[in-house]
Amino acid sequence: MFVLGIDPGLSRCGYGCVEHGRKPRAVAAGVIRTDPDLDRPARLAEVQREVRALISELSPDVVAVERVLFQHNALTAMSVGMVSGIVMVEAVSAGCSVVEYSPNEVKQAVAGWGGADKEEVSQMVQTLLGMPERLKPADVADAVAVALCHVAHIPSRRVAGARR
Amino acid sequence: MFVLGIDPGLSRCGYGCVEHGRKPRAVAAGVIRTDPDLDRPARLAEVQREVRALISELSPDVVAVERVLFQHNALTAMSVGMVSGIVMVEAVSAGCSVVEYSPNEVKQAVAGWGGADKEEVSQMVQTLLGMPERLKPADVADAVAVALCHVAHIPSRRVAGARR
Repeated sequence: MFVLGIDPGLSRCGYGCVEHGRKPRAVAAGVIRTDPDLDRPARLAEVQREVRALISELSPDVVAVERVLFQHNALTAMSVGMVSGIVMVEAVSAGCSVVEYSPNEVKQAVAGWGGADKEEVSQMVQTLLGMPERLKPADVADAVAVALCHVAHIPSRRVAGARR
Repeated sequence: MFVLGIDPGLSRCGYGCVEHGRKPRAVAAGVIRTDPDLDRPARLAEVQREVRALISELSPDVVAVERVLFQHNALTAMSVGMVSGIVMVEAVSAGCSVVEYSPNEVKQAVAGWGGADKEEVSQMVQTLLGMPERLKPADVADAVAVALCHVAHIPSRRVAGARR
């Protein structure tokens, strides 16, 4: 089973695809960037095209999206929410299951406690996936952490259905 | 020129299409509702399908969306933002221009001042379009008001290019 984690954002939207098996394996990870000189609708359309291409290429079973909470910067949070909505409908259109996890749930699942900082999350992502280096930028590690959070929520009996 | 106004929302998403001419004319107005028993991704996908069908049917030149502000209910505001983002990318995909107006800009343009209440906006929409009755529910009148707000921002020389 492939789980695509998304850390939504308009400037940088992190993605990380993990295969659920006896040991989780990173399949793809990266960041979608949009041109800050474009207006918001055009940037959202860029994200939509990239996410659609990504889902088409990776064929994830599940798309796990980090739930957007209200942050200090209200304008940023709203753009993040827009990206999140677009990711969800693209996933539904492609026939994927869609789940949302709060930042605390992601930190809890990956680092063991909901108050973990970005550094700890990034370190744990590296360890869990047995990678030689940290994933950068932080948005990529965060997206992979969202995917790993979903993997941690899958009942272990379902490992039998792992793909490949 | 056709302007499709959208008052975004997950439970009720109002829409109103106005033709820009010597006198604005209502072309279509209504509300997209989603099943509250479905989860958020499924409801967002419903809105996407309906909005896509609407844009395809009406072929607006411009889609004008009411800008989402942070309201008392943070969860509701985030769902509204998601719908707003989906509407924008559907409009961009269909080749429409996309503009956003704040609630105050809409009230200012339609009712003459930014502090107008829903009742005044609804009354002015009825008057401006010469309709025998008020548009209901309020989401529909609000959506038409967004379209009328954009019409009010179009330089008058462009009336010459009005369609039909």
